[in-house]
Amino acid sequence: MNLAPERLRGMASALLEARNVPSAHARLQADLLLEAELRGLPSHGLQRLPLILSRLDKGLADGQARGSGTWRRRSFLSVDGERGLGPVVLMHALEAMRPIVCETGIAIAAIRNANHIGMLAYYAEAAAKSGLIGIIMSTSEALVYPFGGTQAMLGTNPVAIGVPSGDQPFVLDLATSIVSMGKINHHAMRGMPIPLGWAVDAEGRPTTDANAARTGAIAPFGGAKGYGLGLAIELLVSALTGSDLAPDVRGTLDDIHAANKGDLLILIDAAAGDGSVRSLASYLDHLRGSHPSDPASPVAVPGDGARQRRAATERSGIELPQPLLEHLLALEAA
Amino acid sequence: MNLAPERLRGMASALLEARNVPSAHARLQADLLLEAELRGLPSHGLQRLPLILSRLDKGLADGQARGSGTWRRRSFLSVDGERGLGPVVLMHALEAMRPIVCETGIAIAAIRNANHIGMLAYYAEAAAKSGLIGIIMSTSEALVYPFGGTQAMLGTNPVAIGVPSGDQPFVLDLATSIVSMGKINHHAMRGMPIPLGWAVDAEGRPTTDANAARTGAIAPFGGAKGYGLGLAIELLVSALTGSDLAPDVRGTLDDIHAANKGDLLILIDAAAGDGSVRSLASYLDHLRGSHPSDPASPVAVPGDGARQRRAATERSGIELPQPLLEHLLALEAA
Repeated sequence: MNLAPERLRGMASALLEARNVPSAHARLQADLLLEAELRGLPSHGLQRLPLILSRLDKGLADGQARGSGTWRRRSFLSVDGERGLGPVVLMHALEAMRPIVCETGIAIAAIRNANHIGMLAYYAEAAAKSGLIGIIMSTSEALVYPFGGTQAMLGTNPVAIGVPSGDQPFVLDLATSIVSMGKINHHAMRGMPIPLGWAVDAEGRPTTDANAARTGAIAPFGGAKGYGLGLAIELLVSALTGSDLAPDVRGTLDDIHAANKGDLLILIDAAAGDGSVRSLASYLDHLRGSHPSDPASPVAVPGDGARQRRAATERSGIELPQPLLEHLLALEAA
Repeated sequence: MNLAPERLRGMASALLEARNVPSAHARLQADLLLEAELRGLPSHGLQRLPLILSRLDKGLADGQARGSGTWRRRSFLSVDGERGLGPVVLMHALEAMRPIVCETGIAIAAIRNANHIGMLAYYAEAAAKSGLIGIIMSTSEALVYPFGGTQAMLGTNPVAIGVPSGDQPFVLDLATSIVSMGKINHHAMRGMPIPLGWAVDAEGRPTTDANAARTGAIAPFGGAKGYGLGLAIELLVSALTGSDLAPDVRGTLDDIHAANKGDLLILIDAAAGDGSVRSLASYLDHLRGSHPSDPASPVAVPGDGARQRRAATERSGIELPQPLLEHLLALEAA
């Protein structure tokens, strides 16, 4: 059964508000989850809501907190997230940075003690739509093995980059793992196997069993280079936020521990640069029109697929896995 | 025949000084090329020197220029490289940024009209050794095809990240192509084939012929994700420096055109953050000690291999391809 996005958005907001989350914060958290669903990224969608609710119930997330920032330097904001909801703390920091970015051209926020910030594209797009270049990085529990290794030692350490480029900003959002743990959970929840090469089991052996992968480790994307990038993000985030390193991180996949990963947000005023938004947009169109390797699949720009899926899902509605839908309906009825 | 690094360093410096390059600039450019040779990255080593000399001879590079910077905002330095040698302009910008970074915590330089900056690790390491986080990006001629495409539309768009982490800073340096064009040139120069999957020929067909690859296009690393990262770098650099986009870039592989690619340098004061250098160093050691997939190959951290190769080459000397050595000796005798 497909449900209208507005129905699910209202349900998510109401469930959050019922846990003492102020309406504006609830709408923001719900919007982030719905945007992930709409863009075909269910691993970062409503599947995460029950955990968020449980964390609120247990005091591991504080729905009212927006995070408390200190300007350590003119363009360096240090943020204690105070257990706030990830999107609330992130967007609050982003808004606090705007006037500084316009003045200094670039600013950074180093955020600790915030809950899971979800789909990073959300923030990169918010920045780029308002004329700012946005670079967002985040860490996680140790889920990824190093290139040449077998043990989970790194987070999935995603990075998103948003660049103003005409009507549709360029938005890249990638985990430095070959897949997100959310996607492996999604396969496990639906009883689907995973492709060989995605993960190893707890003994370090390659596996196609999504459940075995959950206790093992995920491969980095792109071999040594992707591993290097993920490791650089691990170090950058921890060096600047003081957050724990992956083997000690907890709290984005459980409802037992406080979230002790970190998040970085770098904003750059695109207007300070010498480039032209029009030439970027025209280049991206040139790229889309270049010869594809498969004539049936035109070359795409990151974000194109998400926009197409979003438009289609707006029309068709969202189909949730039955157990998740039943769980949410039961929570709503409680 | 292996040559002592100091012999080659002196030769490179002298060849540059003979073309009216001030001694300090010549030593810096020579040091960059030698560091690449020492670290086993010949594609960015002395193989590039004849082209640099020819560009100086033709006025496409100005050995005296250091670039002219304008602070567009408090932390945003716009640099016209004035056809200066890449490392001279880059290091000059880095030094100009130091006092600002200490004051504002983060600063960015957007550089256009500089010549090829070579091995990016050099700058990331220079930053990290002095307590700064350094992020460097650069663009190039269109050499890389988009994921799902067949035409050279993107630069090899490398990124380097340096993070202070104890005695040995963490230094990542990667091209977003599966290999650098320098490495393909290196194979072509030695008459070696390239692995399938590295490149397509001018008609978009996969090839193992290094010469055919030079007129074709290189694959992005890591599929769609590596393509996305390379494209993000393409847009970031052009948006902020006003440099041309890959299909219009010239001047890093020829001695006909001015260099119209761009370079970005972001510096962050690690001391503004809450992290501990000691915990980063200890984590990296923990990573090196984790279970390898092949018991004979311990897990490595980016930069480990370069350090080992550097130490070995310092002892053994540098072996240049015979044609290159003869060319350099002839230039020296001229």
